Amino acid sequence: MYIYELEFKVRDYELDVQGIVNNSVYQNYLEHTRHEFLLSRNVSFADLSKEGIDAVVARIEIAYKNPLRSKDEFVCKLNVKKEGIKYIFNQAIFRKSDNKLCVKAKVTTVVLVHGVLTADFAPFDELVD
Amino acid sequence: MYIYELEFKVRDYELDVQGIVNNSVYQNYLEHTRHEFLLSRNVSFADLSKEGIDAVVARIEIAYKNPLRSKDEFVCKLNVKKEGIKYIFNQAIFRKSDNKLCVKAKVTTVVLVHGVLTADFAPFDELVD
Amino acid sequence: MYIYELEFKVRDYELDVQGIVNNSVYQNYLEHTRHEFLLSRNVSFADLSKEGIDAVVARIEIAYKNPLRSKDEFVCKLNVKKEGIKYIFNQAIFRKSDNKLCVKAKVTTVVLVHGVLTADFAPFDELVD
Amino acid sequence: MYIYELEFKVRDYELDVQGIVNNSVYQNYLEHTRHEFLLSRNVSFADLSKEGIDAVVARIEIAYKNPLRSKDEFVCKLNVKKEGIKYIFNQAIFRKSDNKLCVKAKVTTVVLVHGVLTADFAPFDELVD
Repeated sequence: MYIYELEFKVRDYELDVQGIVNNSVYQNYLEHTRHEFLLSRNVSFADLSKEGIDAVVARIEIAYKNPLRSKDEFVCKLNVKKEGIKYIFNQAIFRKSDNKLCVKAKVTTVVLVHGVLTADFAPFDELVD
Repeated sequence: MYIYELEFKVRDYELDVQGIVNNSVYQNYLEHTRHEFLLSRNVSFADLSKEGIDAVVARIEIAYKNPLRSKDEFVCKLNVKKEGIKYIFNQAIFRKSDNKLCVKAKVTTVVLVHGVLTADFAPFDELVD
Repeated sequence: MYIYELEFKVRDYELDVQGIVNNSVYQNYLEHTRHEFLLSRNVSFADLSKEGIDAVVARIEIAYKNPLRSKDEFVCKLNVKKEGIKYIFNQAIFRKSDNKLCVKAKVTTVVLVHGVLTADFAPFDELVD
Repeated sequence: MYIYELEFKVRDYELDVQGIVNNSVYQNYLEHTRHEFLLSRNVSFADLSKEGIDAVVARIEIAYKNPLRSKDEFVCKLNVKKEGIKYIFNQAIFRKSDNKLCVKAKVTTVVLVHGVLTADFAPFDELVD
């Protein structure tokens, strides 16, 4: 069901005072995985931005299931669907030691070309299976 | 409808290559506002954590409406409801210059006492109107 | 001796597992103070960057004297000197409760105009006393 | 001259509005490399902290030579010396594509056991060559 995955290891500066990865940091993991997925398909978020093409997150839903801690290794997986003008990334993070689900997320993105919403952005349409 | 609000100003290190505040940073704003709200009611997230009482986010839903940019000042507002064992924070971020809605969020939290889910945490129950 | 100061309060997401503000976060505080100082003199770091003018940090030296913790309020102060082509910001962070020195920093910056080092950048020269 | 190295890739959320990695983020890279080095020698920063043993940075000096950008891969190297009660980490970051030096840093740390400075912390003394 997932078409791309990326491996990570928790970095201690990502922990908060509870000794677990801070909630906002998972968004960083999710974003980096999407961007690396795009790069694996020869689409660069940073280069697009320079050309005035911005993929932006319109909505994010994250369910926090199990916290990551110092030394944890994990894998972030994704697939992508199209619904109208929206490209929807379904993402999940699994801890490697026991394959436990840590985070499940649905990330709804849209594409703006010079600030205007675009219904069909070819490089993204090719990502959708 | 909101019972607490906190003023902020964008810091340039929070911007990404698109020149807008990075999506994950809004979670920092939302969290800081919740913690300052708790402090205003004499509840300290950091102190609770030291005593083994952890308020954790179980689920977050964020709708990104308008991006914040360098120099923007904004206000983050919240209210809190109880549903079963969940304390639900409804939060919104408004840009000060034009009062435009930037972000709307629903943050579902639960309280763990020494790792065990707690149905009634008195200091939080007093926050609910 | 200092010509500008800005007030802050620690945000809990800036703490690490030791319960103190993470070392890297002080660089955020120092940078934000420099940028707000520039804005107070009508110089915008973000706007300059759009025009191809980049003030970049060439060297930073930070002495960590006393750690900041949850709930701490503090003030970040600065002055600026010119040495050759370098603009040198001397910065310090003081905890408000007891006026204790927390961090002392020397930040050496240079200005690049379309990638080329500039000896005299008028808007910065006016900052130097 | 370096006794440990760790490979990284820039993540887009680490970039700022100039399209380069934000200065403070290099401290994250440097810290993560030190902690992974410690782990490779069976010393855990996070576990030590739980036992009341805190390795803290007393001083950091960073020279920024060449900026890292989106997609850049790099390696962070280190060695460690002892001077009096100080453990001094010399660190450098090299871009992989051309082996260019990006950052050079000297990080001076001390060890506190339950808040008291310690002259000889055996697990760290064994790291020093």
